[in-house]
Amino acid sequence: MNFICTKSDLLQAIQINIKAISSKPQMPILSGIYIHAEDNTLDIETTDYDIGIICKIQADVKEPGTIVLPGRYFADVIKTLPGDNIEISSDTEQNTINIKSNTAKFNLLSMSANEFPKIKKLESENNLSIRSNILIDLIKKTSFACATEMIRPVFTGCLLELNNAELTMAATNTHRLAIKKEIMDDNNIDLSAKFIIPAKILNDLAALLVADIPIDVNISYSHNQISFTYENIYIVSRLIEGQFPNYNTVIPPSFSSSVLIKTKELQGAIDRVSLISRSNQYNIITLAFDTDNLLLSSNNPEIGKAEENIDIKLNGQPMNISFNAKYILDILKYIDSENITFSFNTEVSPAAIKAVGDDMFIYVVTPVRKAV
Amino acid sequence: MNFICTKSDLLQAIQINIKAISSKPQMPILSGIYIHAEDNTLDIETTDYDIGIICKIQADVKEPGTIVLPGRYFADVIKTLPGDNIEISSDTEQNTINIKSNTAKFNLLSMSANEFPKIKKLESENNLSIRSNILIDLIKKTSFACATEMIRPVFTGCLLELNNAELTMAATNTHRLAIKKEIMDDNNIDLSAKFIIPAKILNDLAALLVADIPIDVNISYSHNQISFTYENIYIVSRLIEGQFPNYNTVIPPSFSSSVLIKTKELQGAIDRVSLISRSNQYNIITLAFDTDNLLLSSNNPEIGKAEENIDIKLNGQPMNISFNAKYILDILKYIDSENITFSFNTEVSPAAIKAVGDDMFIYVVTPVRKAV
Repeated sequence: MNFICTKSDLLQAIQINIKAISSKPQMPILSGIYIHAEDNTLDIETTDYDIGIICKIQADVKEPGTIVLPGRYFADVIKTLPGDNIEISSDTEQNTINIKSNTAKFNLLSMSANEFPKIKKLESENNLSIRSNILIDLIKKTSFACATEMIRPVFTGCLLELNNAELTMAATNTHRLAIKKEIMDDNNIDLSAKFIIPAKILNDLAALLVADIPIDVNISYSHNQISFTYENIYIVSRLIEGQFPNYNTVIPPSFSSSVLIKTKELQGAIDRVSLISRSNQYNIITLAFDTDNLLLSSNNPEIGKAEENIDIKLNGQPMNISFNAKYILDILKYIDSENITFSFNTEVSPAAIKAVGDDMFIYVVTPVRKAV
Repeated sequence: MNFICTKSDLLQAIQINIKAISSKPQMPILSGIYIHAEDNTLDIETTDYDIGIICKIQADVKEPGTIVLPGRYFADVIKTLPGDNIEISSDTEQNTINIKSNTAKFNLLSMSANEFPKIKKLESENNLSIRSNILIDLIKKTSFACATEMIRPVFTGCLLELNNAELTMAATNTHRLAIKKEIMDDNNIDLSAKFIIPAKILNDLAALLVADIPIDVNISYSHNQISFTYENIYIVSRLIEGQFPNYNTVIPPSFSSSVLIKTKELQGAIDRVSLISRSNQYNIITLAFDTDNLLLSSNNPEIGKAEENIDIKLNGQPMNISFNAKYILDILKYIDSENITFSFNTEVSPAAIKAVGDDMFIYVVTPVRKAV
């Protein structure tokens, strides 16, 4: 095998492919990057069995062939190469790969291409297309709410529900729930389906998709897999098996009290007040809603107390409600609106945060019962 | 006690003071920040017994007094306060300190001011003054060469030698040695002394002194302490006891071969070649000097090989010498000159790196004996 490609193309591909290489691969071959060169195209693949990634880039292929290179080393080498172009050739007798760029020459031991589990493309009739900015918004406003520990697999993923033109993404760790909806104006949505996608691949995807100009992402799915295709990239992931809780029953049908608050003002106040509470496992802060004042406070007998006041106009009954400060801060980070509405019923029932101007998003958080 | 000061002044002081708070204080009181308010001045002190720091800032002192606050919490609180001004008052009955700024109010438990080991200022007749940019240069070009592990205390510090107008700083970990000299044009140098300063405090100082305009730093020393005074800051540190090796005997008196190399070109080549060697404990790369070519190479039987060529003009005999790549890379980072000279005698004797244009700096590095 022998080809020449640009450093920038290869580096970009490898930095995407590396996301499917586990830090602790199940088998040695899964630490490798598979490259198939043919018809002036490189087919670059990596997989950890949960996720598979294929990037295609152009190259001047002088001799077609297939190689597998040790992933992390190959990525480090490509990153530091001094030239704009890279020539890669295999020496089948020596079982090594030569990498040349400008004054630099590397000779890496190759891995066995036969052992690499080549990614099977998902063949499905269930397809939809979504703009990348919309997909990013769905992910960013929900995936943070997942459980980080493997309490139950379904809580480590986001539910994606298709209901004709309505697309809903939901995530919960049982203490808080984030739901974001989108109405698709494309004509390609006449689907009804729901599946749970691992949060990790969604977060990776959101990071990869960050670009100035929105692009189309094509999604295909089967009963146990989902794939995302855009530009020269193909990503396939397993789905999480199990039953996602019915989120509609978690959202209170109505609220007896609500208040409008400036997003940044609330964020700053909780940031400060939680300095005292955050050393504690439950990170409890108390929100005391009064007619025209919200008093936020926290208390740790070993450190001290913090208090902060925000002017508000309360619609409803004064009430003291305690929360895990992190659960409120988490959502405020992803709200772009200047104001939010904070709604509640009692000091023990779920409260809701909505971004003013976005009716398609709701965040529900359960209060902490405070020892009296 | 009661005073008002600006957030920016207090924050700047605390970010300096915090450097003398150990992450694992020997006694609880050493985790505290001591503040004495009097005559519209705050005297802010911290110490871990090895280092002591005093910062003085202006304040509107309404009621003089002394407090000690839990250091890390106090720093976090000040950092996040919403207003430009901060009011701090003590409640002696409650044993608490009130901190107010704009809408935020904190109430921190105070520590016992009587228990705090107030810093004694070093009274010494041995004083000199040095420009901050010169001091930073002395530190940056030597302190990296110290031992990081406590093999022998003297190798964790930099030797500072005063010899009339000549100032020398030297550091070694026994495998490499960095020496930087300065000729002082001030008339205040008629001193002869040598002492070993802990690298940690020198690195902290170099980081604190980074400013656009050079300032004067006043240094005082006794047999076991050194102090640095500049602007509103006073830093005192213990000295390291012991005998620093005679560095003059380590520098070879002459070299049979030498070569001129572009600093960045050598740095780039070693960076790449060491990708292969760095997974190995000794990180060995080989420099093969030939008449008009330098071949850098490394080799790891489990990964592969790397090679890189640099055009040179060798003055002397061709030779292959092996080094720990890190020991060469370390010094190249701190050389500002476009070119260096690399000088050597044999493949087992110390080689030297000098920055072209700076006769006051030399770096000596011992080759690695390579298993044949």
